[in-house]
Amino acid sequence: MDKQHLIDCHERIKPFIHNTPVLTSRLINGMAGASLFFKCENFQRMGAFKMRGAANAILQLSNEQKRNGVVTHSSGNFAQALSLSAQSLGVTAYIVMPDSAPQVKKDAVKGYGGVLVECESTLEARERASQDIVEKHGATFIHPSNDDHVILGQGTAGKELLELYPNLDYVVTPVGGGGLIAGTALAAHYFGNDCKTIGGEPFEVDDAYRSLKSGKIETNTSTNTIADGLKTQLGDRNFPIIQKHVQEIIRVTEDEIIQSMRLLWERLKIVCEPSCAVALAAVLREKERFKGQEIGIVISGGNVDLSRLPF
Amino acid sequence: MDKQHLIDCHERIKPFIHNTPVLTSRLINGMAGASLFFKCENFQRMGAFKMRGAANAILQLSNEQKRNGVVTHSSGNFAQALSLSAQSLGVTAYIVMPDSAPQVKKDAVKGYGGVLVECESTLEARERASQDIVEKHGATFIHPSNDDHVILGQGTAGKELLELYPNLDYVVTPVGGGGLIAGTALAAHYFGNDCKTIGGEPFEVDDAYRSLKSGKIETNTSTNTIADGLKTQLGDRNFPIIQKHVQEIIRVTEDEIIQSMRLLWERLKIVCEPSCAVALAAVLREKERFKGQEIGIVISGGNVDLSRLPF
Repeated sequence: MDKQHLIDCHERIKPFIHNTPVLTSRLINGMAGASLFFKCENFQRMGAFKMRGAANAILQLSNEQKRNGVVTHSSGNFAQALSLSAQSLGVTAYIVMPDSAPQVKKDAVKGYGGVLVECESTLEARERASQDIVEKHGATFIHPSNDDHVILGQGTAGKELLELYPNLDYVVTPVGGGGLIAGTALAAHYFGNDCKTIGGEPFEVDDAYRSLKSGKIETNTSTNTIADGLKTQLGDRNFPIIQKHVQEIIRVTEDEIIQSMRLLWERLKIVCEPSCAVALAAVLREKERFKGQEIGIVISGGNVDLSRLPF
Repeated sequence: MDKQHLIDCHERIKPFIHNTPVLTSRLINGMAGASLFFKCENFQRMGAFKMRGAANAILQLSNEQKRNGVVTHSSGNFAQALSLSAQSLGVTAYIVMPDSAPQVKKDAVKGYGGVLVECESTLEARERASQDIVEKHGATFIHPSNDDHVILGQGTAGKELLELYPNLDYVVTPVGGGGLIAGTALAAHYFGNDCKTIGGEPFEVDDAYRSLKSGKIETNTSTNTIADGLKTQLGDRNFPIIQKHVQEIIRVTEDEIIQSMRLLWERLKIVCEPSCAVALAAVLREKERFKGQEIGIVISGGNVDLSRLPF
């Protein structure tokens, strides 16, 4: 994927996304000893960067494909993103979700016009349900993170950030399924001025960290993290990009995630997910490395259950 | 105070304040049946619109006055605003605060370089302590809301909002001491296109509502509201402006405040004080009146104790 792909993608999705604001905090800069620029994708439509990739993926379809709809399996933000993108474009979105998923997530998908398809809570059941919809309706399957068009879409957040701050030394994102960090790394490569991409990942789900070490896609045997958006694993489309363009993945503890989340809420005055705090926690953990640098941080999303805060 | 005063004030304080972003929510618009534009002063420096008035008041002083410092009595956002404004301008700020005030508020003042002066928790003790500082240091007393320069400063948030959205039909703010709504009403009068100013106030502290009815400044006998920024009463400088330029004050219940606060957190993804939610609650309470209109809402501040949320 070259520079022009990212430029074209951005132009294509602009009518469907917000160019989200960038916030700063004098106090957090003081704590970090660096200048941090927070790209607030919690203010994105439906509340997360996932809107970008979902919109791009649907916009790539032919008219016939659009008529037949799209399908994904997700119980997270991509479910809502695909639903809202599809609704904006008059396309049917089938969302496969385990029947055990929280009612609020099911309602959100329906609220954005998605067609909810419930299944058992196993990977096999989800894949079978998705395949059934592909066969029955001719719908196009769109993976939440392991899809070139999705990766490009997610990269536009970093592109917007670098358009405002072209001399960033680093851009840091959380790492879950790998779509955001792969897209961001492409944006940093093509639009940055020697800007390096770094990932933040919980110790509890450090599959991406281990994957970069071993050179193959690793999985997690347990997922005991508050950063519920980061439990997924890398895929064969985004992993090569990550290998090529991501400098390092920094792991953080659950305590560091919660402390950083509280900082973001108290000092930036934003409602954001624990996953976002992983990127800030990574910067605060390795202060010496980032000292005096200009660092962009992607705040990935803001869909939080206010009744279940860790503070 | 004429239009030019407000223009001059805005130019004067621009180097010391943020032009805060305006957020919108499709879902909240749908609930209100109107187009709402939220001016996010929770993202202002030190976390509230109070920074604007404090900066303007200090900038009006002579060099000799600046050398002698400023004093106010406040345990709220104005204490922090005066401290930070003074710090930015190399001026000493004496902050009189009851010794019973929360430690976090005392620490915040000290963090911004203010000189904390503790006293007993009565109005008399606060006024005496302030007067002592005026006499001892020659400091200038600056009232948090009943001061022309403060009123003008607070009005610049509304001015910025109208510069972005010149055709607002209404601008709605919470009403506490009256500085914000008076300044906003001046901005709407001078910079709006037939834009009306409306206040939101809790039933539990409806002194401003009663003052407009009776034609004189009323007080509260009790202050049982979650909107802790709104317990103060109007003053002789702002009340005449409010009488002349504010169309109405709408009262809301505590439940309505909490529900609106939750909406702001969940849908706008912002951390904001209960006081802010009073303005949204007023709009949602009187949907018929606001139907189809363009409405600016000033989100007044974001300094919240995350350990004591009402949800």
